[in-house]
Amino acid sequence: MSELRRDPITGRWVIISGDRRKEDFRSAGEALEEMDPCPFCPGNEELTPPEIIAYREEGSKPDKPGWWTRVFANKFPVLRIEGDLNRRGIGLFDLMDGIGAHEIIVETPDHTRSLVDLGDHELEKVFWAYRDRILDLRKDPRMKYVLIFKNHGRAAGARVPHAHSQLIALPVIPKAVQEELAGAGDYFRLKERCIFCDINRQELELQERLLLENKNFLAYVPFAARFPFEIWVIPKQHRSCFTGFTKEEMMDLARILRGALVRLSLTLGNPPFNYLLHGSPYLPATDKEAQRVEASYHWHLEIMPRLLRVAGFEWGTGFYINPVSPEKAAVQLRLGV
Amino acid sequence: MSELRRDPITGRWVIISGDRRKEDFRSAGEALEEMDPCPFCPGNEELTPPEIIAYREEGSKPDKPGWWTRVFANKFPVLRIEGDLNRRGIGLFDLMDGIGAHEIIVETPDHTRSLVDLGDHELEKVFWAYRDRILDLRKDPRMKYVLIFKNHGRAAGARVPHAHSQLIALPVIPKAVQEELAGAGDYFRLKERCIFCDINRQELELQERLLLENKNFLAYVPFAARFPFEIWVIPKQHRSCFTGFTKEEMMDLARILRGALVRLSLTLGNPPFNYLLHGSPYLPATDKEAQRVEASYHWHLEIMPRLLRVAGFEWGTGFYINPVSPEKAAVQLRLGV
Repeated sequence: MSELRRDPITGRWVIISGDRRKEDFRSAGEALEEMDPCPFCPGNEELTPPEIIAYREEGSKPDKPGWWTRVFANKFPVLRIEGDLNRRGIGLFDLMDGIGAHEIIVETPDHTRSLVDLGDHELEKVFWAYRDRILDLRKDPRMKYVLIFKNHGRAAGARVPHAHSQLIALPVIPKAVQEELAGAGDYFRLKERCIFCDINRQELELQERLLLENKNFLAYVPFAARFPFEIWVIPKQHRSCFTGFTKEEMMDLARILRGALVRLSLTLGNPPFNYLLHGSPYLPATDKEAQRVEASYHWHLEIMPRLLRVAGFEWGTGFYINPVSPEKAAVQLRLGV
Repeated sequence: MSELRRDPITGRWVIISGDRRKEDFRSAGEALEEMDPCPFCPGNEELTPPEIIAYREEGSKPDKPGWWTRVFANKFPVLRIEGDLNRRGIGLFDLMDGIGAHEIIVETPDHTRSLVDLGDHELEKVFWAYRDRILDLRKDPRMKYVLIFKNHGRAAGARVPHAHSQLIALPVIPKAVQEELAGAGDYFRLKERCIFCDINRQELELQERLLLENKNFLAYVPFAARFPFEIWVIPKQHRSCFTGFTKEEMMDLARILRGALVRLSLTLGNPPFNYLLHGSPYLPATDKEAQRVEASYHWHLEIMPRLLRVAGFEWGTGFYINPVSPEKAAVQLRLGV
């Protein structure tokens, strides 16, 4: 059983999963691990835990081929769904059992395609799967936050080559999310406006960091980008949470994300990247808090190309050096060269 | 001229240095770049900016051989010492000119030795150099914080193989440091005690994460370690700032750091690592703030082995997964196997 431990000084939570041997680090290679047979391929469904949801051809059966997007529990989860949190202290220290969910969202049945190769209708299904899992997990009162992220390429932490995203549901709100909520909340108290909406308006007006626009979404390089060629995808309308979508909005999201990833790939030659969905926490402690979060927070997707090794400086400080100006990055990404 | 830009939502500052071409990322290799001749070697002093300080043999001349530890400005600095901050806004956004200092501390004249190979008296000189630079830079009222860090090995961000540390003086206090100060300050208000002193006592009592102890210092694996085999080195006596040392204390620091690095190297086979000096900010805004920081903060050195690729999860959240329990790591490090 893993543990969640709280740093007594900063309040940061860490998952201590605790069963990796040091030999595993020494042998960590540079290439993706091709498994034969690939457990994420159609026909090999018995190699994974049973599916939680899947979008599949009419008439096809669960845990059998015929799916386009398939979600199941991670076979080697860092957190487990069964049990109580069992919050406790050891002197100064706080910890709880490693309760949560850790799921895999396979994005396509085709082993050879990556996210950037998918059509808009295929991408759309991946997003509906994200939404469905968020809606389901919010029913569990132990969970405070659902992280959805993607690692593409070995340097971005991917291990299995078959295209997939991951979901981790947590019994705590991560520190970086708390900071976003606090910053957005402070701004709302001061201005009675959403800071993300204001940034959207300014980026549309200035144009210099804007990458793509459609009816419902914007993609731009953020003003204080931490990483070279970082891109944010964000709804134009104020939406605090990744849940209440129309079909049209979801298609627009698929289109703009594909546009951003294609430009990233053209400009940098299929670079390793991570993306992370920043939705609002979906279980605020009180109704009043829920109202404030709904008014002040604005969901978005952050795409972080992994072109640099992060050095000691960034690690210990949360302070980043970005050697490519966001304006120049936007010009290059727009041209796709 | 680089810029410091502030993220409008979280308040995080980013250095935008802005002159790297995208081709530089594509060609980034896995090996350290051996330069011929090595600009950090004795005899090649004219290849670096003039030395700021050096500890050298009696009678030897500045910018000539005869030194044991040598400090000079980085030839390619991310921040520059000349000029004014020129704080300004663009609509919602805040920025200032990239003013600061970026220095290199060469740790040994011997090209073939790394920090772990140095004797205690050699290591001691490196630490005196850190202290001297901190004392000098605190005279500059534009500077708010001095970061001192080391990257060892390519995977930890090192580029030049000749052993060195780096110093970056900043006109802002990094977010992670602010969080430490805030957490330690909150604890002090509640308990009227330093939280680091309390943790030291508990680690000494429990012993299970303790690695090394001498008269003036402790080394242990922290309870909520973010990284496998992470180690903290911390003074036993309450000391807020990395400045007021006796000769005996400095030798004890050199001994315990060497002990920790030797065990890390024995256990993991010369792993890549970063270390980062967490001193108190040395220019608090008011006397009252200075008193509170002095009472509540406790300097320490954090050693972070770089065994894992950090995945998307950690990036966006400041939330870490550590697959080696701190207690098991301490057992292995104590045995050095």
